[in-house]
Amino acid sequence: MIKLDLSHSLDKEVFKDYQSKVTIINQMINEKTGLGNDFLGWADWPINYDKEEVERMLKGAKYIRDNYDILVVCGIGGSYLGARCALEALKGLYPDDKLQIIFMGQTFSPNYVAQVLNYLKGKRFAINVISKSGTTTETSISFRLLKDLLEKQVGKEEARKAIYATTDKEKGALKTLATKEGYETFTLPSNIGGRFSVLTAVGLFPLACANIDIKAMLEGAKEARDLYMNDHLDTNICYQYAITRDYMYRHGKSSEMFVTYEPSMSQLSEWLKQLFGESEGKERKALLPTSVTFSTDLHSLGQFIQDGTHVLFETIINVVKPNQDIVIPHDNEDLDGLNYLEGKGLAFVNQKAFEGTLKAHVEDGGVPCNIIYIDEMNEKNLGHLFYFFMRACAMSAYLLGINPFNQPGVEIYKRNMFHLLGKKGY
Amino acid sequence: MIKLDLSHSLDKEVFKDYQSKVTIINQMINEKTGLGNDFLGWADWPINYDKEEVERMLKGAKYIRDNYDILVVCGIGGSYLGARCALEALKGLYPDDKLQIIFMGQTFSPNYVAQVLNYLKGKRFAINVISKSGTTTETSISFRLLKDLLEKQVGKEEARKAIYATTDKEKGALKTLATKEGYETFTLPSNIGGRFSVLTAVGLFPLACANIDIKAMLEGAKEARDLYMNDHLDTNICYQYAITRDYMYRHGKSSEMFVTYEPSMSQLSEWLKQLFGESEGKERKALLPTSVTFSTDLHSLGQFIQDGTHVLFETIINVVKPNQDIVIPHDNEDLDGLNYLEGKGLAFVNQKAFEGTLKAHVEDGGVPCNIIYIDEMNEKNLGHLFYFFMRACAMSAYLLGINPFNQPGVEIYKRNMFHLLGKKGY
Repeated sequence: MIKLDLSHSLDKEVFKDYQSKVTIINQMINEKTGLGNDFLGWADWPINYDKEEVERMLKGAKYIRDNYDILVVCGIGGSYLGARCALEALKGLYPDDKLQIIFMGQTFSPNYVAQVLNYLKGKRFAINVISKSGTTTETSISFRLLKDLLEKQVGKEEARKAIYATTDKEKGALKTLATKEGYETFTLPSNIGGRFSVLTAVGLFPLACANIDIKAMLEGAKEARDLYMNDHLDTNICYQYAITRDYMYRHGKSSEMFVTYEPSMSQLSEWLKQLFGESEGKERKALLPTSVTFSTDLHSLGQFIQDGTHVLFETIINVVKPNQDIVIPHDNEDLDGLNYLEGKGLAFVNQKAFEGTLKAHVEDGGVPCNIIYIDEMNEKNLGHLFYFFMRACAMSAYLLGINPFNQPGVEIYKRNMFHLLGKKGY
Repeated sequence: MIKLDLSHSLDKEVFKDYQSKVTIINQMINEKTGLGNDFLGWADWPINYDKEEVERMLKGAKYIRDNYDILVVCGIGGSYLGARCALEALKGLYPDDKLQIIFMGQTFSPNYVAQVLNYLKGKRFAINVISKSGTTTETSISFRLLKDLLEKQVGKEEARKAIYATTDKEKGALKTLATKEGYETFTLPSNIGGRFSVLTAVGLFPLACANIDIKAMLEGAKEARDLYMNDHLDTNICYQYAITRDYMYRHGKSSEMFVTYEPSMSQLSEWLKQLFGESEGKERKALLPTSVTFSTDLHSLGQFIQDGTHVLFETIINVVKPNQDIVIPHDNEDLDGLNYLEGKGLAFVNQKAFEGTLKAHVEDGGVPCNIIYIDEMNEKNLGHLFYFFMRACAMSAYLLGINPFNQPGVEIYKRNMFHLLGKKGY
């Protein structure tokens, strides 16, 4: 379960000023009447998703786990961050699993691409290429290289069994290629944008390959949908959170800093940075999304947060119970002075670091802190959390008067780049 | 070699207004008369470093490479970020080396610690524990656990050969333990703070173990020292850069965003965030340091940078020539429409992405962009770059009227935490 603590950030009295706006916007989301309403497929996705496709994903995942040692997930942006963040949050940074998952297609870096290709040489790998159009430049270059390597290693016939395409249901270069080659395909729904796609095949298929319970994720998302599709500000913590963002922005804060206490959750912050930054960063508006992983970054950005410019507020995602614990052992000499913690778990120490830091930042630093508590990190809670943030983002953007579902600004650099690359028509 | 392009950020006329201040501060740094002058050891380090110690590091590194498969580097903050960022920048994210390097001691997360300990089980590993005092909580807990595992696996006698301590020359818990146990030790100089320590044994010993040419790094740093210890603003690009930071801060910008085009350089941005955030984030002043890795993050934060709030400027670190390149192959069908790039290298594409993005952000987005060009990423240039940024940071902090070398704000959360943990005296 997920709880929201606003006692260190906001007086709940301000909800009253927001009630009428929230009621209108909630109705716009439910009835799909707001700006960008063609891209609200995610809102009812937890009840509308294609059950048959989920079964095909599970079957494909089993085939991959039975036949390969590595799955290369080839995508960028919304076709990359969701799967990566869920994989790390649920499995950790040193997962003990027979299938390794590697990400590619998210960079032009020749160093990165060359190293991954070199690493894959001679290994048994499958590919999940993810692109709505099939012409996303980073992803399609990487896929061309990966396909080339795979076909050279195992032949065209075996290669086609190892390639899974997640793309548009009907059209586009990748769909055409997949049909021609006979790849298994999954659908990137046309009414769901990349940054809202983690609960579709985009996120779920790689996660299923990692033996993650994707049905439980969808169940968690459904639970969240049921909880947050109403305008009751006394209980709807999703919209409460959205309001704090709007309130902070209108009261002098220019950055929201996402805080976790788990290195495996740093990619969740990256997913959040895309979700909010790309949904809201328009018309010279919005909070700059930033992130830290504590206690690691208390030893780097901690000083700034404590004593620097008052530009930010924190949104802390605190997992109360870790998936495993480690007990601090006794030492006869106690030269490091740690015996006072003997027999205590690291989970306890990590929670006290959180509590001590919260107090320091709020009371001494004057930094407002939202806290989102998750009882434990599992599939259901993560699915819930994804939905929580997507719905909060829609509310928050609409409160700003922004269409949450387009991204007009990302076309400009692409046009310039295509012109410089000599692409026809640019 | 390193070049600075300010043509998209600043009119060099403003240098005139800074000349007298820069002259005074440069003298303060050279003569060690400013605030925090006890911690200016890094400034002349490239000529003052202990040559005998470097030879001992090389000898230790050879022993580790010959006898172990993994080196666990156990440290946090300045005893973690420098080595990690240099390792990744120089060796990449999928390095093809017989010695694997793993970082620990930078988190309380039981999930992370448990996974690393599990991964190390039954493997041949050495430890480099790094802590000035030996009582940094994250690091000393991890070290206690690592030492325990190692002694159980190979016995106390063999374990002591596998442990290298980087710590204070004379005092502290780790020094005492190292002396008692007979560990090989390296020095964390008392006049160099953590975030300025990358060119001491703190950074250099792990890097030597990774077969990185640490003498070339020191040589690059010496080259930088010789170039940047003067007040000639027409040629001293280090201070030119420091001035842009001060100017941006005083003209409405609240965040500096470090930009790289290499996934392997994202940790360099983390090092920079500590360097500037911890040096300057005091007295309710300073720029919030943030970072992105392009083109990856053009698909997440790109929209905000292009069209969002005008709170930031960019400092782009562009490596002109990659260490390797990958040519885009021909495809008979060309369904992905990439044949126009056939025969071109990814390095070319990455540079065009940089140029197209620069134009989009500067001309359409109105975002000021500093560009630091590095001809290639190698030991010498990275050593140069480290010194460049440390010296620029000292200048920049002094321009703000801040002592760059203390970190009073990081004590508050620690006091709270120790109190909650029940540590004596808190």
